Parts: sequence; C-alpha cells; structure tokens
Amino acid sequence: MANTIEWIGDAGGFLRLLDQTKLPTETTYLDCRTVEDVWQAIKRLSVRGAPAIGVSAAYGVCLDAGSKESALAACDYLATSRPTAVNLFWALDRIRHAIEKHEASRLVASLLEEAKAIHAEDHDLCAAIGRHGADALADLPTGAGVLTHCNTGALATGGDGTALAVILELHRRGHEPKVYADETRPLLQGARLTMWELMERGVDATLITDSMNAQVMREGRVGAVIVGADRIAANGDAANKIGTYAAAIAARYHKVPFYVAAPSTTFDLTLTSGDQIPIEQRADEEITCGFGKQTAPVGAKTYNPAFDVTPAELITGIVTERGVFKPGEVAAALSSAQAK
Amino acid sequence: MANTIEWIGDAGGFLRLLDQTKLPTETTYLDCRTVEDVWQAIKRLSVRGAPAIGVSAAYGVCLDAGSKESALAACDYLATSRPTAVNLFWALDRIRHAIEKHEASRLVASLLEEAKAIHAEDHDLCAAIGRHGADALADLPTGAGVLTHCNTGALATGGDGTALAVILELHRRGHEPKVYADETRPLLQGARLTMWELMERGVDATLITDSMNAQVMREGRVGAVIVGADRIAANGDAANKIGTYAAAIAARYHKVPFYVAAPSTTFDLTLTSGDQIPIEQRADEEITCGFGKQTAPVGAKTYNPAFDVTPAELITGIVTERGVFKPGEVAAALSSAQAK
Repeated sequence: MANTIEWIGDAGGFLRLLDQTKLPTETTYLDCRTVEDVWQAIKRLSVRGAPAIGVSAAYGVCLDAGSKESALAACDYLATSRPTAVNLFWALDRIRHAIEKHEASRLVASLLEEAKAIHAEDHDLCAAIGRHGADALADLPTGAGVLTHCNTGALATGGDGTALAVILELHRRGHEPKVYADETRPLLQGARLTMWELMERGVDATLITDSMNAQVMREGRVGAVIVGADRIAANGDAANKIGTYAAAIAARYHKVPFYVAAPSTTFDLTLTSGDQIPIEQRADEEITCGFGKQTAPVGAKTYNPAFDVTPAELITGIVTERGVFKPGEVAAALSSAQAK
Repeated sequence: MANTIEWIGDAGGFLRLLDQTKLPTETTYLDCRTVEDVWQAIKRLSVRGAPAIGVSAAYGVCLDAGSKESALAACDYLATSRPTAVNLFWALDRIRHAIEKHEASRLVASLLEEAKAIHAEDHDLCAAIGRHGADALADLPTGAGVLTHCNTGALATGGDGTALAVILELHRRGHEPKVYADETRPLLQGARLTMWELMERGVDATLITDSMNAQVMREGRVGAVIVGADRIAANGDAANKIGTYAAAIAARYHKVPFYVAAPSTTFDLTLTSGDQIPIEQRADEEITCGFGKQTAPVGAKTYNPAFDVTPAELITGIVTERGVFKPGEVAAALSSAQAK
C-alpha cells in the first residue's frame, strides 16, 4: 500500500498526502508545498485520524522554516486547522521545542529530522501494538474470522494503525485472517476506509452492515473481535466509535474474545470509570441524509451519539505497545511504568 | 394517516394506492383503473409488504370482472407480479373461489365484497395484535421508550401492522410511547417507512442507526423492544429482518423485555427450530452502493443475509391476534386452536 503520509526529497522537498476524501473510489495524492496546503488538507479531511494529523502538521512546519519566526508562526497557524485534535497540539508543541533548541542556520533540516522522528515513533508504536496483539491471538486457527469496527489503520496513524495493525501482523505471520469489517454507520469508515486498506494489503475482507455482526458470530464465523479506542478510563472502560459496544455485547453472548487495541497515551487515569467520558452528539443529517440523498422524512428527529463506552467486563484484553493487559490491570501497569 | 390501500367509489370505481417508492420525501397516490396498473404497482414496489400486496391484488381483479373469464385471467396475470409473495397467492385463490361461486351477472359487486372482506379481516387481525400487545405492555410507564426494527406498519398490511400496531395502540391509550426506530440497513425501511408512519400518526419517534440501539438501552431509554417476524418455528425461534437478533441480544444484556408481534399464520409448525429456516442472501450492491453512491471500494466482497433468527430464549413473548404466548407455548396453543 502506498504511504498515507510521505516527505518527498530533502530539506527543500514537500509533503505528499493520500487524499482520503477521494477514497474508496479514487487513489490520488495531494502534494503540499506550502503551510497553507497542509492546513487545507487537514481542514477538509484529506488527512484524518489523530496521529496522522499530528505527523502531517509536524512536516507542514518544515515548509516554512526559513526563520524561527516563520516556523513558529506556521505552528500557530496549523494548530487552528482542527481545534479538537489532541495529537495535533502535542506534535506542534514538540516542533516548537525543536525550533527553540536548534540553530536558525540549519532549522529546516533539524525540524525535518524531528518530524521524521515523530513519524517513525508513531510507526514503531503501531508495530509494537501489532506484535503484542498477534501474540495474544496466536492460537487462532489459520483462516479464522476476525471482526473489526470503524477504521483504525494506516489512514489514521503514522504506521499500520492499532486494531488493524494486529490484523496485518496476523496476515504477515501467515494466519490468513478472514476479516469481517462493520460498515460503521453513520459515516461508513469501515466501508470506505477499512475495506480499502485491507483490499490494498491483500487481506481477505468481507463488508457487512453493523446489524449483521451478531448473525455472523452466530454462524461461527468469528474467532475474535478487535477494535480501537479513543479514550480508556482507569478501570478499563473504553470509549470508541458508536457500535463498538453492541459488537462487544454480541461477542460476549457468543463467547468470542473481544480485544481493544490502543497506544498507552489513550488511557486517561484521571477518569475512574467510563461513565465520566463525555459522549459527543452529532448532526441529524449524518443519519437522515448521509450519502447526499434524503433517506428519512424531512424533519425526522434523530439521536446520534458519535461514541459509546464498552464496559471493562466485556473486554478480554487491552493491547498496547507495552503488552496486553486485562482491563483491571491497566491503571497499575501504567503507574508502575511511569514510576520507573 | 391517509390509507395505504383504498377502493374509491362503487363497483365502477378504482383502486387508490399510496406510492411507497416516493416515500419519505413525497406523499403521492397512484390511481389504478386497470389490472395492468395494479400489476405495475406491485412490480415496481409502489405497494409492498405481503398482506398489503394480497389485498391490492384482490381489489385489482375487480377492475376486469366483466366476465368470469376475464376475472380468472386477471387472477393469473396478477399472480405473476411478485412470484415469491405467499399472501398474494392466498388472496388470489380466495378470489378465484369467489369467481366460481358467484353469478356472472353481478360478479364485480361480489368480488368487490370479497376483496373488502380480505382487507377488513387483515385490518381486524392487526387491531387484535395491537390490543393484545398493548395489554402486555400496560405496565410501561407513560412516556417510556419502545424500540423497533424495520417496518411493520400500515404500509405493509391492510391495517395498522403488527409491531407498529402495538405501538399505535399504546399511543391511542395515552401511554405516550417514545419510539426509537432502527434505520434498518441495508434497505433503510426504518428510516424511510417507519419514521414516516410514526410522524404521520403524531407518535414521538427518534431515528437511530442500528449500531446505536445497545447504547440507547444502556442509557435507560428503552422500556421494551417490539419487532415483527417473517416466519416462526414450532419452538418459538423467530426469523425477521437482519439486525433483529442483535437487538434481542442487547435487550437481554440490559434486561429489557423483547416481544415479537405476528399473526398466527406466521407460525410454521413443520419446522422444529429456527435452524431449519433458510436465510436469503442478497446482492453486494445493497451494502456497497445502497444510497445511489459507491461507498465501498469497487469489487468489495460482502456478506448480506436478509434475515436472522432470534432464538426463543431471547424472546419474552410472541404477540398474536389470539393473545400473547411464551415462545415455548406456541405449538401447543396453535394445535389446540386448530383442534377446536
């Protein structure tokens, strides 16, 4: 698969992004030669997924780093592209430190090194999650079904993703996973993006509507479920794209193991349980008119939570770059890691 | 709400159908003045739902009943409009018997009486299901949430429907049900048809994606789930639109009662369990291109079962025109009724 994010050339080069707004029907690239180009690419969702946005912004600063002043101004400007993206601010803060630390005379080269380091670290994080997850699922028979929800792959990160990294590692190791991808209404990230990534990588992938995953499990087609997470509380409750919770309940009913894959930065130990995670409500139109066509009566009322919270009791294990933990072990494991 | 199916005038009159292909964005009627008009209306799904098709065809024969020969030819012709619709054949058989029984001199009037009887009986069946279901749910607090899946209303029957008849009866009795309607992917019968019917009737209705029903239950918003059925086995296992099973599992996890509403003709006592119910597989395009827009990669493989089977153990009660039964009681109740 071609790279989602790639710096082309040396310090005088440019940033090439896979244009996700054109997927799945067109694979086209966007060459960003100015900071404005990168800002626009983030704004119009040509690049999406918190880690991918952070990496792209870090590279973006390198396009106007002729002086410390211009580089700092680029950081401020890029921070306005997606005001809620935590990874964006984190990456830009790291670039700001690099701007202050390095000499103005070779600033572009220094910042490019830093951006590449951020990119490489995210890549390694994904790879570690993939390895630990594949180890946890090593007993799955060859050709076993693996069900996933939403998009957690290369399109959203600087590497192979989180849950999708586990599936790709199983594929690399010859397990021949047969993936069932929930389409993930309302925005269809599963249909548009996960199916595209899996087909590009040559992984056996089957698209289903979200309402079918229980039936697919009933037919014995699923050996494990693996999903990502947006935020995980200290007790192991995990917030993720709406529909994750229903899949977890169905997995429990069918005695199918249910794994959550996420970097340890996803844990928020200030929250004692998932009840404290706020759930974003989104617009009616995503449900009533999601594909440019009115599919519900005009004026239909909707309820449209973007996320749900899967309680720790339904989670078999949480796959991180540091290993796989039981939901109840997470707080202790992270505290001891931080203490070291 | 205007009638889905209505005979306008006397023996020289015509059949007026609500054109379901225009819903939910337009409420338009189709005046059928020839048998060919009715055949076309059934063929292009202007009228759908097995009981509604049967009633429409019965009326259709009246449009060419100048002689017994022409009436019998109309029966044969209308039978070709939807070759898999069991209710269509049942209704036409009943009209054929009426043709043979009655005098040619006043055939149109006699057949119109028979068609109206078929229509009225279906109407009464729906009403009885509605009453028994509302009795079973009489303890629901005023304003309680009721979740439903797919379309089971006036658009599909000669009356108020099955599960929707129960909801409408609760509404009539002043329970003020707050309905959550699953959109019902892939074909969106919940978004397009159920939301339209509920809004027309002034019932408080909220549209959700199928993946949201578990979260809505977790938030304590649902007092009961009620759905229809296409076929019920002797042990109470019930086949219904894909997604019903997932809703039943979520209901069990949240300790929410789960009811199936269907006329007793839905029971197939020749099947000992739901495992014997064949599951129709449908086309990829319903999932990959369901809204007139390609939303998955070209060539994406899908799995698209039209129905699933909810096992009896997840069903609180089966609401029929004869009363509400536990799934395990169904075979005995129907046998004793037939023996009487």
